[in-house]
Amino acid sequence: MYAAIEAGGTKFVCAVSDHELHVQDRIHIPTTTPSETLGAVFAFFDKYTLDAMGVGSFGPIDANPSSPQYGYITTTPKLAWANYDFLGALKAHYPQLPIAFTTDVNVAAYGEFKRGAGQGKKNVAYYTVGTGIGMGYIHNGGIYMGDQNPEAGHILVRRHPDDTFAGACPYHGDCLEGMAAGPAIEQRWGKKGKDIGPDEPAWNIEAYYLAQACMTTTLFLSPDIIIFGGGVSKQSQLFPLIRSQFTRLLADYVTVPADADQYIVPVALGDDAGITGALLLAQEQAA
Amino acid sequence: MYAAIEAGGTKFVCAVSDHELHVQDRIHIPTTTPSETLGAVFAFFDKYTLDAMGVGSFGPIDANPSSPQYGYITTTPKLAWANYDFLGALKAHYPQLPIAFTTDVNVAAYGEFKRGAGQGKKNVAYYTVGTGIGMGYIHNGGIYMGDQNPEAGHILVRRHPDDTFAGACPYHGDCLEGMAAGPAIEQRWGKKGKDIGPDEPAWNIEAYYLAQACMTTTLFLSPDIIIFGGGVSKQSQLFPLIRSQFTRLLADYVTVPADADQYIVPVALGDDAGITGALLLAQEQAA
Ligand SMILES: Nc1ncnc2c1ncn2[C@@H]1O[C@H](COP(=O)(O)OP(=O)(O)O)[C@@H](O)[C@H]1O
Ligand SMILES: Nc1ncnc2c1ncn2[C@@H]1O[C@H](COP(=O)(O)OP(=O)(O)O)[C@@H](O)[C@H]1O
Ligand SMILES: [Zn+2]
Ligand SMILES: [Zn+2]
Repeated sequence: MYAAIEAGGTKFVCAVSDHELHVQDRIHIPTTTPSETLGAVFAFFDKYTLDAMGVGSFGPIDANPSSPQYGYITTTPKLAWANYDFLGALKAHYPQLPIAFTTDVNVAAYGEFKRGAGQGKKNVAYYTVGTGIGMGYIHNGGIYMGDQNPEAGHILVRRHPDDTFAGACPYHGDCLEGMAAGPAIEQRWGKKGKDIGPDEPAWNIEAYYLAQACMTTTLFLSPDIIIFGGGVSKQSQLFPLIRSQFTRLLADYVTVPADADQYIVPVALGDDAGITGALLLAQEQAA
Repeated sequence: MYAAIEAGGTKFVCAVSDHELHVQDRIHIPTTTPSETLGAVFAFFDKYTLDAMGVGSFGPIDANPSSPQYGYITTTPKLAWANYDFLGALKAHYPQLPIAFTTDVNVAAYGEFKRGAGQGKKNVAYYTVGTGIGMGYIHNGGIYMGDQNPEAGHILVRRHPDDTFAGACPYHGDCLEGMAAGPAIEQRWGKKGKDIGPDEPAWNIEAYYLAQACMTTTLFLSPDIIIFGGGVSKQSQLFPLIRSQFTRLLADYVTVPADADQYIVPVALGDDAGITGALLLAQEQAA
C-alpha cells in the first residue's frame, strides 16, 4: 500500500491507497502536539503494510537534503512544532520505508499537475489561500526547489487604496498572507469569508492582492498555469476579478501562454489535490 | 573560434575567442537599426572562422524553442527592434553555425556562475541595474526558463515613504525598473547616478527598492546568491544598505544560505560577465 500524509496546521489528513492509487482508508487527525498527533498517525498506518510514503507538511520546512536540519519544520508560529524533526520522527517509526518529504503546497501542486488542472503542462504554479498562503511550483515536471522551497506567500504587496487593515502576518504584517489569507479577511471585515456576499467589495480587495501574486509569479517563474486552492479560493466570483486585475497590472509587458481564464484557474481536484500528490510521490519513491 | 554577442539597447559588444576562451578581438557597435547594427556585427565576425556563437540579447525576447516567435525580440520600447526576428537574421547569415540564444541577463548570470561571484553555487540570481532592470537565473547549473524567461525587473514594489517620483516604466510606471533603474534615478534627482554623492538619501531609496527585489527573489526562487551588475551597481555604498533593508524586510521568516554580505554581492567580472557567459555558451554549443 502507499501512504500519504497531508500535514496541515489545523489537521493531518492521512490516507492509504492500493498500487493504482485508489484510496482504501483515510483519517483526519487534529494538529495538537507532535507526540499526540503522530501517535494517532502511526496508529492509523500501523494497520497496513506500507511500500512507500509521501508527505506534504506545513512549514516552512527544511527540504534541502544536504542541510543538517533536513526534514525539520522550522519557523512555524505553531510553537510545539517549531524546530521539530518531523521526517526524523517518521523515519524512527518506519526505518525501512521510502519516504518522499516536501511541503503541503508542493504535494497539492504535484497532484494538480499530474491529475488536475495542470495536466499536460510543464510549469505549474499552485497557491493555497486558506489559513495561510503558500505556493508550490512544478518546473519541467518536477517539484521546484532552490536552496529551499519557495515561500511566495509572504511577498510584499501594494496596499489597495481602500484598505486600512494593518495586516495579520506575525513576521511581516501586511505581506500577501498578512493581507489576503482567510484570517486577514475575517479580521478586516469582522466576519468569515464564507459569510461575505459575493458582490461585496471584500472580493475586489482580495482579488487585487491575488492578482499581484499572479503578476509576480508570471514575472519570476513564467509558468504555464497558475492554480488556486484552499478555502478562500472556493469563492468562485474571485477568479474573474483576479484575471482582470492581473491583466491590467501586467499591461501586456509579457504575454502569458494562455488566455487569462485558462491561465488563472481554480483547483480541479478540490480538497483531494494534496493527498493525490502525496500518493503519487509515494508511488514514485517505491518505483 | 567562438563568437559572443552581448546585444544591449545602447550598444552591441561582439567578441571572438580561442577555444580556451581567451578573447582575441572585440568591438562595440551602437544599437541603431537592425540592418545597420547587424551589418557592422557581420563585418566584424566575417573575418573569423567560427565554430559556435553565444548571444545574449536585450528584450524581452521569445526564448521558447517551441514558440513560433522563437528568437524574436518582442515588446521592446526600441521600436526598430520590436517584433524583430533577431535569431533568424543571425541564422540567415550563418546557416551552419550552432548558436545559443538567450537574454543579456542570462549570459551575464551564466558568466558569473561559471567564472565570477557565483562559482561553486547551484542557484544564482543575477540582476543588472542599468538603463533597465533585468534578472537572469541559473537553476541547478543551467539557465532557468519557464514558458519564457523571467522578467523580474518589472515586479511591483512598495513606494518608499519619502519618494514622490511617478516612475519611469512605459508599461507599469512605478514598477521596480520604473523606480530604480538608472533613468529613474536621473529623473527623480535631476542628475545622473554617478553625480550623486555616496551619502545622499538617493541611495537609501534605491536600496529600499533593490532590497524588495532581493526579498521577492528569495521567497520565489530561494537562490544561493544574488549578484548585482550594471552601471547603478557600481555605487558600492548601495550594498550595505540593500543588505540591511533586506534583512529587516525578510524578518527572519526564512533563513538564507549565507550571511547577507555573502548573499547579496556585486559582480566579480564587472562588465565582462556577459561576454564571458556568451563565450561559455558558444563553447557548450560547439561541444
Ligand atoms: N468557502 C469559503 N469562503 C471563504 N473563505 C473560506 C471558505 N472556506 C474556508 N475559508 C477560510 O479559509 C481558511 C481555512 O483555509 P482552508 O484551506 O480551509 O484550511 P487550511 O489552510 O487550514 O488547510 C479560514 O480562514 C476560513 O475562514
Ligand atoms: N557609476 C555609476 N553610478 C550610478 N549610475 C550609473 C553609473 N554608471 C552608469 N550608471 C547609470 O546606469 C545606466 C546605464 O547602465 P549600464 O549598465 O551602464 O548600461 P546598459 O544598461 O545600457 O547596458 C544609466 O542610467 C547611467 O546613468
Ligand atoms: Zn508574511
Ligand atoms: Zn515595468
